[in-house]
Amino acid sequence: MNRTIIKAYKKEDAFSYAAGAYAVIELLESCPAQAEEVFLHPEFEDRIGLAERCAKLGIPVHHGAEAFRRINQKENTYVTASFRKKEGQLRHNRPHLALVNPADMGNLGTILRTAAAFSLTDVAIITPAADIFHPKTVRASMGAIFRLNLRCYEDFGDYRAEFPTHACYPFALEGAGLETALEVDTPRFVLLFGNEATGLPPELAQVGFPVRIAQSELVDSLNLSVAAGVGIHAFAQRYGLV
Amino acid sequence: MNRTIIKAYKKEDAFSYAAGAYAVIELLESCPAQAEEVFLHPEFEDRIGLAERCAKLGIPVHHGAEAFRRINQKENTYVTASFRKKEGQLRHNRPHLALVNPADMGNLGTILRTAAAFSLTDVAIITPAADIFHPKTVRASMGAIFRLNLRCYEDFGDYRAEFPTHACYPFALEGAGLETALEVDTPRFVLLFGNEATGLPPELAQVGFPVRIAQSELVDSLNLSVAAGVGIHAFAQRYGLV
Repeated sequence: MNRTIIKAYKKEDAFSYAAGAYAVIELLESCPAQAEEVFLHPEFEDRIGLAERCAKLGIPVHHGAEAFRRINQKENTYVTASFRKKEGQLRHNRPHLALVNPADMGNLGTILRTAAAFSLTDVAIITPAADIFHPKTVRASMGAIFRLNLRCYEDFGDYRAEFPTHACYPFALEGAGLETALEVDTPRFVLLFGNEATGLPPELAQVGFPVRIAQSELVDSLNLSVAAGVGIHAFAQRYGLV
Repeated sequence: MNRTIIKAYKKEDAFSYAAGAYAVIELLESCPAQAEEVFLHPEFEDRIGLAERCAKLGIPVHHGAEAFRRINQKENTYVTASFRKKEGQLRHNRPHLALVNPADMGNLGTILRTAAAFSLTDVAIITPAADIFHPKTVRASMGAIFRLNLRCYEDFGDYRAEFPTHACYPFALEGAGLETALEVDTPRFVLLFGNEATGLPPELAQVGFPVRIAQSELVDSLNLSVAAGVGIHAFAQRYGLV
């Protein structure tokens, strides 16, 4: 692969793009072996520093504004890297996050950023789901995607077959309060969050120990990224992840 | 005001739009006196029920797809209401949320939805800030904006002059942990959150009792809506708001 312009991304491609300084720096820091090429716009502030870093890592750099012409019709990006997509492997001795059918790339990226912030680094994505490698997801994650062990599963059963003993905590509108859920001691757990509009499928909403985040009658529900933030934070605090 | 198409919104207008079923229903439920006109698309499911409700409230209804032609170039909206903008009044005997220079309408709406969900209903917006009445903010709030006492202040000093004794908890990257902050008993408090990119201005980050949400080294910071969700949830739980 060698090209001097940033092509439109397609889901079936083996490569994707990390756009923006945060995402590119996280890529070079955490997964340099996956980085393929870096594109630097003349207006990027630390152009020389980043080019030197790429040289040390043996990653080709393209200089110039031309490569950005297509993608900068919508927003200004001054640095972008292409990278080879690669899923990770969840670990048996760590707690997990399972996102079931998340549909919005912005939400997905934000939740991955939150998971990294609270050291819940092993994440299962149950498909159909927003594309974890789409440049929009990568950007919304601020590059946190490169810090995580991420794996896609066709259904929750496939995940469960691999990790049958993790204690399941589905977040649903019916369930016990967070405090009750945190009384049990289950350091190997999986937190389940469903789709933005439809939540978790009924069979998953009832598995294990359903948890409800207490909320007023003034709203129907919480935003998915906010609910995931509150839930992940509570478990991370309880089990000393942060 | 009487027109049969949904005009482009301008910040200086005295009116704005609530788009989508959630936002319109919240408007009619919480602030019917502010509602001016309702536009119903032929494909809106509960067209008859909503028209009857508007008739009872004395709110004119326009039927037809034509009114939606301009706004539906980007997304599908089947019900929209125009409403008169009106700020509220924060109460002295309630805890407050203060959003200092939030720039993104989506974030602002999401945080307002979170504030309503956790019964932190008195909210100060310190300008410059994203427009609280912009249709995008209203939509992102899922109509929660109509459940809140919202007021804009030109600077934090103006807010503080009105509420000098509320205990200040600025959320910043340096501060004590949440648990320490929650040990004190201060039922009249104000939680401060800053701008997405720049956080709180230094003088506000140090006022009162600065709080830091513990997070790993894997990320630079949390997303603003997520940080606000975690912070508001913790205080709401501690003070029995939900």
